[in-house]
Amino acid sequence: MRVLVANRGEIALRILRTCREMGLTGIAVFSDADRESLPVRYADEAIYIGKSPSAESYLNIHKILQAAKDTGANAIHPGYGFLSENSMFARMVEEAGLIFIGPRSQTIELTGDKLAARRIARQAGLPVLPGPDQPIQDEIPSTLRQNITFPVLIKAVAGGGGKGIRLANDEAELEEMLSSARQEALKSFGDDTVYLEPLVQKARHIEVQIIGDGNGNILCLGDRECSIQRRRQKLIEEAPAPDLSPALRNHLYESALQMGKALNYRSLGTVEFLVDDRNDFYFIEINPRIQVEHPITEMVTGLDLVRAQLQLAKGEPLQFSQEDIITRGSAIEARIIAEDPDNGFLPVTGEISYIRESGGPGIRIDSALYPGLVITPEYDSLLAKVAAYAEDRNLAIRRLRRALKEFEVGGLSTDIDFLIQIIDSEPFLQGRATTTYVDTFQPIPSINDETFEMDLALTVAMIEHNKIHNRNKSEENSDGFSYWKFQAWKEQMR
Amino acid sequence: MRVLVANRGEIALRILRTCREMGLTGIAVFSDADRESLPVRYADEAIYIGKSPSAESYLNIHKILQAAKDTGANAIHPGYGFLSENSMFARMVEEAGLIFIGPRSQTIELTGDKLAARRIARQAGLPVLPGPDQPIQDEIPSTLRQNITFPVLIKAVAGGGGKGIRLANDEAELEEMLSSARQEALKSFGDDTVYLEPLVQKARHIEVQIIGDGNGNILCLGDRECSIQRRRQKLIEEAPAPDLSPALRNHLYESALQMGKALNYRSLGTVEFLVDDRNDFYFIEINPRIQVEHPITEMVTGLDLVRAQLQLAKGEPLQFSQEDIITRGSAIEARIIAEDPDNGFLPVTGEISYIRESGGPGIRIDSALYPGLVITPEYDSLLAKVAAYAEDRNLAIRRLRRALKEFEVGGLSTDIDFLIQIIDSEPFLQGRATTTYVDTFQPIPSINDETFEMDLALTVAMIEHNKIHNRNKSEENSDGFSYWKFQAWKEQMR
Repeated sequence: MRVLVANRGEIALRILRTCREMGLTGIAVFSDADRESLPVRYADEAIYIGKSPSAESYLNIHKILQAAKDTGANAIHPGYGFLSENSMFARMVEEAGLIFIGPRSQTIELTGDKLAARRIARQAGLPVLPGPDQPIQDEIPSTLRQNITFPVLIKAVAGGGGKGIRLANDEAELEEMLSSARQEALKSFGDDTVYLEPLVQKARHIEVQIIGDGNGNILCLGDRECSIQRRRQKLIEEAPAPDLSPALRNHLYESALQMGKALNYRSLGTVEFLVDDRNDFYFIEINPRIQVEHPITEMVTGLDLVRAQLQLAKGEPLQFSQEDIITRGSAIEARIIAEDPDNGFLPVTGEISYIRESGGPGIRIDSALYPGLVITPEYDSLLAKVAAYAEDRNLAIRRLRRALKEFEVGGLSTDIDFLIQIIDSEPFLQGRATTTYVDTFQPIPSINDETFEMDLALTVAMIEHNKIHNRNKSEENSDGFSYWKFQAWKEQMR
Repeated sequence: MRVLVANRGEIALRILRTCREMGLTGIAVFSDADRESLPVRYADEAIYIGKSPSAESYLNIHKILQAAKDTGANAIHPGYGFLSENSMFARMVEEAGLIFIGPRSQTIELTGDKLAARRIARQAGLPVLPGPDQPIQDEIPSTLRQNITFPVLIKAVAGGGGKGIRLANDEAELEEMLSSARQEALKSFGDDTVYLEPLVQKARHIEVQIIGDGNGNILCLGDRECSIQRRRQKLIEEAPAPDLSPALRNHLYESALQMGKALNYRSLGTVEFLVDDRNDFYFIEINPRIQVEHPITEMVTGLDLVRAQLQLAKGEPLQFSQEDIITRGSAIEARIIAEDPDNGFLPVTGEISYIRESGGPGIRIDSALYPGLVITPEYDSLLAKVAAYAEDRNLAIRRLRRALKEFEVGGLSTDIDFLIQIIDSEPFLQGRATTTYVDTFQPIPSINDETFEMDLALTVAMIEHNKIHNRNKSEENSDGFSYWKFQAWKEQMR
């Protein structure tokens, strides 16, 4: 198989790595800005696709298809972002006789329409947030207006990934924000239709990784906690989510699988939920692609999710069954971003003069950094993902903290210190941070190692208590490890 | 606890990392050559101990003890090499009222005397190579001379780690080599006593990792295959060893534990065995320290071996029991060394101008490299350890190959291409390389990815056959993973 990777940066490199491990030909595409990039140097072949603005290269369907044609590729991996959730792109790939490494284009069309996805979820028996699934294309229909409970979120029907969401606290704010939300939706997603969704207060964002073979077999690969977000963009993710009762975990898995079955899902997908402080949960959306945070699932399951995607794309059956999916330990990922903490965390650009990435036990780095790399304003400002694995959450936190402290980037400011402040804070240590936590976070800039040790000691007792409390009957009963299996949940599913 | 790390380079950094994760104060020592080193930059404190030659710094007991006193350290971790197997050092640390992070000094004294270790092993019921345990201090005693079977190895009683061993094929060679072997032994180990050991032809070097609490509890943490050696120095190691029958594996574990019990072993130890082509095995020696290749055991067990050492040193009990030790998947480590493949693999020195270490799924890097680092002739020429983890050996090999291909070092020549040639070769792929394999290896410089794919495909069938054949009754029965547990072996031990 000849795989064109229609992406850039760390995820392009990550996909090319697995192509190489599988003996598949990996083909990179590049814009002007990425001529010297690591994916380009690393790939078996590379092809120029256009100027630096994404619209002229990575977001340009025609140029990607032409690149596939010119290089004789027979499969396209879209990565995340860019064209990965564009159903028209997926359909055109299929119609060109190429393999789209992801779900079927019809699936992407359904998951891309957030109202359609909600309807399917509701039909499949998933809990969905109340409120009519009513699109707003112009004025708010009067039948809808009478039923709004504030605060309410304005979301783009074609949106996703937390982008372009507005919060309205009352009718005046709703009126005021509606047109700007619709303009932004049009600009970002090519469709100005929006809808309203009640705000869940004190919500945790928990997602379930599924994989399907497109022939009715859907497996659950565990969950991830992604509540540590800034302006709805994930900053720190962990697997498994802390402090979930076995019953709630089983319900989430069952729901995710039901959603996968309803779609006869193929390839990787992430079913996203909000969990409120009463442990009620609601389906939000399903992401039909590899996630930024997939490494933590790989670390606790021992699997290679991109390899699984590529094997399915080659027409092979899934190489594992639900019984093989056993997570071990805890993995936490932090996103190192080029931004200025002293200036509202706005993205910064410039040349990387020096780089020393963390290493040693339990650390995985995903980046495409090298000294001399110029970070330009055209693309996402994610520099690197640092993921730490250890036997339990407490040890994984210590390891992540250590790895963040030893990560060195010269020439640009980053969020590293901010990330450390977050993981040093009690709500994070206790695993009870909600999605608004970071936005209201007041860092204590002077926290030192001793304070961290004290904070951690205080929370360990509680964490240990919950761990024992949550321990599933079927899991290995050991001191040093925390395992969970799907036994109880499988019983339920039969 | 304040831990002085009496070492340098990657192992010093690796120990300091775990100190940091545990909230312990890590103190680095440094010679003139290492003023700017990563361990020094990374440590909580650092202290100068002398000039670059090891004898004036890292091998100087007085200076290390003075450094511990000056920094108020209450524990010393010796790492590997340097003073790590020096029983006098360990005793002086103990006598200074400090904690030696390793076995008791008496244990090190016993394990350091290779003839004494053989006697203990024999008493403990381990198979030991035949031949009288007779030291040669001057002439070969006539009683011994009559019983020599050639070829025979001349080994230093105080030696270890494969250093300074001579092979004599007949009596003339033995006579000729004896004095030079004794001179080298005196120079390297301060003792010119040697002994003779029959050469095991077609031997594999397989070692078993043990840990003890010094109170009679000894655990086995699995095995490692270390047959890929050049001039008796390990180059590539893997865990678990390929192609071992469950019966042989159980015998090796049982033997290692018996040795540990005979010594009432404390801290980490590695029991080394030769396994011949009839699957007979022989105890060679026990290494009373952390090994260079410990990361692969950490990857398959999920444990942190240095953390376990530090916990024991703090007086805590072992944090896991034998039931908790479950290995998952396969891990392979390759040593990147500064040397010239075109000039007999002699060490090279110089400044590192550029460095890009591998990353992504399943890769762990242990190094202390940075651009500008000057590699000097005073120290070991190991630059970095690249370790790859995957669900099975086949996938781990592919991943290691990928990671070696993406590792970039500028300014110095390295063995990276040679390592790739080794892992591309059939004997390695089939897991049947013996300890002389690399020394007689004729690389095919032009092997390409396609040839590798073909070779690997040819060997997969055999490997799969052996894997199924060797599968222990008690292990998880899955397609994607290869597990082994100690059930059968535990039965036997009761």
